Amino acid sequence: MLTLQELSVIVNQEIDGLYKSRQPEGLYLPIDYALSAGGKRIRPVLCLMATQMFSESYQKALKPAIGLEVFHNFTLLHDDIMDKAELRRNKPTVHKKWDENTAILSGDAMMIEAYEYFFDLEPELLAKVLPVFNKTALEVCEGQQFDMNFETQENVSEEEYLNMIRLKTAVLLAGALKIGAQIGGASPEDADKLYQFGIEAGLAFQLQDDYLDTFGNETTFGKRIGGDIVENKKTYLLIQALKSDKDHRLKAILNDTQLKDADKIQAVSAFYKEHQVDVVTQTKILAYYKSAFGILDSINLEDGKKEPLKAFLEKLQSRIF
Amino acid sequence: MLTLQELSVIVNQEIDGLYKSRQPEGLYLPIDYALSAGGKRIRPVLCLMATQMFSESYQKALKPAIGLEVFHNFTLLHDDIMDKAELRRNKPTVHKKWDENTAILSGDAMMIEAYEYFFDLEPELLAKVLPVFNKTALEVCEGQQFDMNFETQENVSEEEYLNMIRLKTAVLLAGALKIGAQIGGASPEDADKLYQFGIEAGLAFQLQDDYLDTFGNETTFGKRIGGDIVENKKTYLLIQALKSDKDHRLKAILNDTQLKDADKIQAVSAFYKEHQVDVVTQTKILAYYKSAFGILDSINLEDGKKEPLKAFLEKLQSRIF
Repeated sequence: MLTLQELSVIVNQEIDGLYKSRQPEGLYLPIDYALSAGGKRIRPVLCLMATQMFSESYQKALKPAIGLEVFHNFTLLHDDIMDKAELRRNKPTVHKKWDENTAILSGDAMMIEAYEYFFDLEPELLAKVLPVFNKTALEVCEGQQFDMNFETQENVSEEEYLNMIRLKTAVLLAGALKIGAQIGGASPEDADKLYQFGIEAGLAFQLQDDYLDTFGNETTFGKRIGGDIVENKKTYLLIQALKSDKDHRLKAILNDTQLKDADKIQAVSAFYKEHQVDVVTQTKILAYYKSAFGILDSINLEDGKKEPLKAFLEKLQSRIF
Repeated sequence: MLTLQELSVIVNQEIDGLYKSRQPEGLYLPIDYALSAGGKRIRPVLCLMATQMFSESYQKALKPAIGLEVFHNFTLLHDDIMDKAELRRNKPTVHKKWDENTAILSGDAMMIEAYEYFFDLEPELLAKVLPVFNKTALEVCEGQQFDMNFETQENVSEEEYLNMIRLKTAVLLAGALKIGAQIGGASPEDADKLYQFGIEAGLAFQLQDDYLDTFGNETTFGKRIGGDIVENKKTYLLIQALKSDKDHRLKAILNDTQLKDADKIQAVSAFYKEHQVDVVTQTKILAYYKSAFGILDSINLEDGKKEPLKAFLEKLQSRIF
């Protein structure tokens, strides 16, 4: 059993220089640039972890795992155009460093390339794995569409929000685990359990992100605190808070364009605390983590096999509690 | 054996309303819009033609054939953004009717959906067909990249140009035929022959488009004549003509920004005629058609089986000769 760290090293080695010097350069250089920027590469690592739970070696899943990371980076390239993001992993985004057309076309090529990594699987396995990947990929697009809708949608319910982050974030983690399990030879039941584990972990992870954006520590979170508040972003916190905003005091703060950023962050955070939005969110996150741990427990394997995935989830959870 | 017309009707029925009322609407409505606009749907028809050459029925290839059309329309959505095109099939392009983000994301979803149509094939066949589709899809992106490069590239050789149109246009026709043949149970040799037939036919078709843009008849061509000349587009004609432009007379015309469109079209067409660029191009097109017919002849099947594909090629050729 390889650890999280060992698997990360393997994934990083595999991705390094993958698209160097392929022609036409205008298409492949931006792909190399995007993939070289790093990131945590959680998805391929999760995929390999799932494989080695059910099989002697992670090897057979290595290329498909890379495909998942290539796919993930394709979504980032296109999302960054749509969100007009200027930086990604502290480097200029592809559409800023080159231009939008480059980001569109290189993204398209990455999407297509992602499939290529699955084709070494034997036919029976390919026919099982690829529909999982494809469904996941489509759902990620649906999640992005809902996310964009929410920018202009007046009221977003808690249910709608959870469905959006499930699609945009959780299904790809879940899909990576399920595909890894399938390649490792898991039973359909166990593969589905790992999928559900990924959904719960993914939801916990995204809600944590929402929580930390307001209540986190700038140094450990790695981003400026309060960005979501400044942008009136419809996060889990804001959606919860609006439920308690009977006298429209919160709405008034959100719509006050005179308010300085720091004052707005202060006022909204105070409203959150006053209405225990922080506690409600923490409770929700904890419930998802608990559920994920429970699913892992229910898989009929010796504890040693589950250790890396358990360690991974504990590490994720330690960002907040 | 169904005819070209019969297969077209089947394809049209299959595509009609395929993405109506799927959620989120913001993602699927533009897909429905793009697919409903019609077009000749050559790729799925070619795919089905290839299948019925080698098999009792086209049925097994029907869904994959639709996947090819969905893929083709995905490329149009994204190409139209890159080219800032306002109209497609006489209707506003998706990025004009909605916006660029919509065209990017709905295009992505179409790309992913295209794969979905292959998953009913039995595993062994899926594992044969999908790499052909994937290689084709990636080459289409490469072709688009070369095409964009050529806009700013000073000198484009005949060889570079033919390679670009092979990638951008011919490989998808060729891939559709090969996939259809594979699904029909053709031998690898025959499947490759149909692929090569598609390449030759695709090159002929694209060079014909270049030819007709200058020397065509507005009514039958369906586009305004001379558009390529006005835009200084590096077509096969212009690349040929520049070889004869020893005294830079043609270059002077191209760079003369005072010249009215009609005068420019007249002057460049005259230069083409003077240097027999029209004849050279016609000869090249004829050679590709001849080669395509020759490949079809070399396939060891009774003539009746080849009839629909032969009729298709004759129809294509009749646009010019």
